[in-house]
Amino acid sequence: MVVLMRVLSRRLRESIGPAAPARPRAVHSVAEGKRGSRIIMSPPLVSLDLPDVWAPNFGHSGPPLNYHQTNGQTAAMIDGKLIAEGIRSRIASEVRRMKDSIDRIPGLAVIMVGQRKDSQTYVRNKMTACEEAGIKSVLAELPNDCSEDDVLKALLSFENDPSIHGILVQLPLPNHLNEERILNVLSLEKDVDGFHPLNMGNLAMRGREPLFIPCTPKGCIELLIRSGIEIMGRKAVVIGRSNIVGLPTFLLLQRHHATVTVVHAFTKNPEEITREADIVVTAAGVPNLVRGNWLKPGAVVIDVGTHPIEDPNHEHGYRLLGDVCYEEAVQVASALTPVPGGVGPMTIAMLLSNTLDAAKRAYDFS
Amino acid sequence: MVVLMRVLSRRLRESIGPAAPARPRAVHSVAEGKRGSRIIMSPPLVSLDLPDVWAPNFGHSGPPLNYHQTNGQTAAMIDGKLIAEGIRSRIASEVRRMKDSIDRIPGLAVIMVGQRKDSQTYVRNKMTACEEAGIKSVLAELPNDCSEDDVLKALLSFENDPSIHGILVQLPLPNHLNEERILNVLSLEKDVDGFHPLNMGNLAMRGREPLFIPCTPKGCIELLIRSGIEIMGRKAVVIGRSNIVGLPTFLLLQRHHATVTVVHAFTKNPEEITREADIVVTAAGVPNLVRGNWLKPGAVVIDVGTHPIEDPNHEHGYRLLGDVCYEEAVQVASALTPVPGGVGPMTIAMLLSNTLDAAKRAYDFS
Repeated sequence: MVVLMRVLSRRLRESIGPAAPARPRAVHSVAEGKRGSRIIMSPPLVSLDLPDVWAPNFGHSGPPLNYHQTNGQTAAMIDGKLIAEGIRSRIASEVRRMKDSIDRIPGLAVIMVGQRKDSQTYVRNKMTACEEAGIKSVLAELPNDCSEDDVLKALLSFENDPSIHGILVQLPLPNHLNEERILNVLSLEKDVDGFHPLNMGNLAMRGREPLFIPCTPKGCIELLIRSGIEIMGRKAVVIGRSNIVGLPTFLLLQRHHATVTVVHAFTKNPEEITREADIVVTAAGVPNLVRGNWLKPGAVVIDVGTHPIEDPNHEHGYRLLGDVCYEEAVQVASALTPVPGGVGPMTIAMLLSNTLDAAKRAYDFS
Repeated sequence: MVVLMRVLSRRLRESIGPAAPARPRAVHSVAEGKRGSRIIMSPPLVSLDLPDVWAPNFGHSGPPLNYHQTNGQTAAMIDGKLIAEGIRSRIASEVRRMKDSIDRIPGLAVIMVGQRKDSQTYVRNKMTACEEAGIKSVLAELPNDCSEDDVLKALLSFENDPSIHGILVQLPLPNHLNEERILNVLSLEKDVDGFHPLNMGNLAMRGREPLFIPCTPKGCIELLIRSGIEIMGRKAVVIGRSNIVGLPTFLLLQRHHATVTVVHAFTKNPEEITREADIVVTAAGVPNLVRGNWLKPGAVVIDVGTHPIEDPNHEHGYRLLGDVCYEEAVQVASALTPVPGGVGPMTIAMLLSNTLDAAKRAYDFS
């Protein structure tokens, strides 16, 4: 089904869900120093794990950009909210079919540590979406100062609960908790986020298949496919290389036979490279990083960024910005996702889809 | 240590080791048909696992190429044989130190099924290299028509042998054996080839580390590093996306902060994209695919291809070609690896290095 709707203005709505958890910021000058250094001897891998620090691009300062204009036309908006609604309604009917056939429903457990406002919103949205689709959802809320054992105990109780088919640990965790050690305990069968390294390896390797595709990247690809955009043979650029968005998005686009370049904070002239792409997926975590002159005329742009920016004039006291400068991009791209209402709703829909798949697998129901 | 030696002519020597096992050829017109088809609905992942079929480029037919010449200068040869010898000699002294300190030596087991001539040569080369470094090596030779259980039995006996620290199943296996099922039995601790999906996931993900880096990709990166070539911030192109070379080479180059594009058989205008790269690693499996006009003047080229071509005038009745048309590339690139004597010897050196690491880990020896 081709769903392309044209809009002339950007509507800002409350966020439906997260595209990526906030990443810690580092001081820019430090990173600049690291970027300038040369690695000519063979260092251990761990020392290469430098943070990706981008120069932020608030406020559109500087001279006006000389970007291409496609005869004043605006791009088609890829309406993630609408597409996600369609998917969620099909999931709901699958859940009903499961209930009617075998008297079982899928179950999702969420573990949330601490009182982060954004995490609370995201978790609430996920649980509401579960409820609407007929999926059981359970929340374990742990205090910010809980121990790793507390988290593991909650996790294991869900692991042993046969009515729970998917478990999701809301990230980021407080710094004193070891994310890797906690996620390692999660069984592959219930890892509906798809962040387990074995799952990632199976996503990466030809001839193998992961049990779950991470939700946000899967949502990006579904947006492209359901908007009738061909991926095979096209040039794609993924901006950002995080484990939860950039990396799996690269792997998925390549599985669909795009020619993919991963642009990151150490890339020289990212705008030049991005301007070559037919498809651009941005998950850099920097508001307005991608200006109009970063885009090839006619490019398709999927914006994963979700950045709350204080705005006293706005209903909730803040508004959301993406990685892409929407006002400029809309004049250059052929299609793009808004923020909010683009990738966010798809992330939730894919989480429901993965949870349904997990339950079908557990009950051998097809 | 910077090791760059200039050579004016290409010397062909007997292969030291394999860069990649031969891949099955498909009829080109069939692949062309597949490449032309559009995927606009969301298909299951497995159906996307199309073979990468390239148009072969034998014989340099067609008009002369209009490639750039760097004032008639020839590129520096990256002497993989020499660099590998240095590494092997350091491994040998580490093995001696281990023997002297704890009276133990590393052990490598190789499982070879069938009588493939190329496999036999590669295995012989690997075992000779082990012997020279003081590493114990054991070979299990199984007949071409052996069962999967026979292979698994051999594998498990090595798994249970504490004097064996690395196990390597020589690929490709005969078609009736399920490679994935066999490799899944291999424990991570003895997977010195690094092909296990969990290992690959750990190589892919930021903040995680694989137990072993696959030998050929690790060899390519070592050639760059030991030749003093900066990777961070450079544009790199990997040609080919196999599990054993292309994919892990992409992942490694990105870990070293290159901006990497993966070119494959579905890429449109691969020569244009490759011409943008400062660093080119070719693992396409097509002799002479990369012509002089595919390269940016001054590019560094690592050629993983190893293709035996019949040649009655040659000592062994055949000579080896790489993926790169050497005679043309040498006039455009700033540095490149020969075939043979480039990546092949490094693959073996890295296998010894991984086996030594496995033994050190097993004995907690540092």
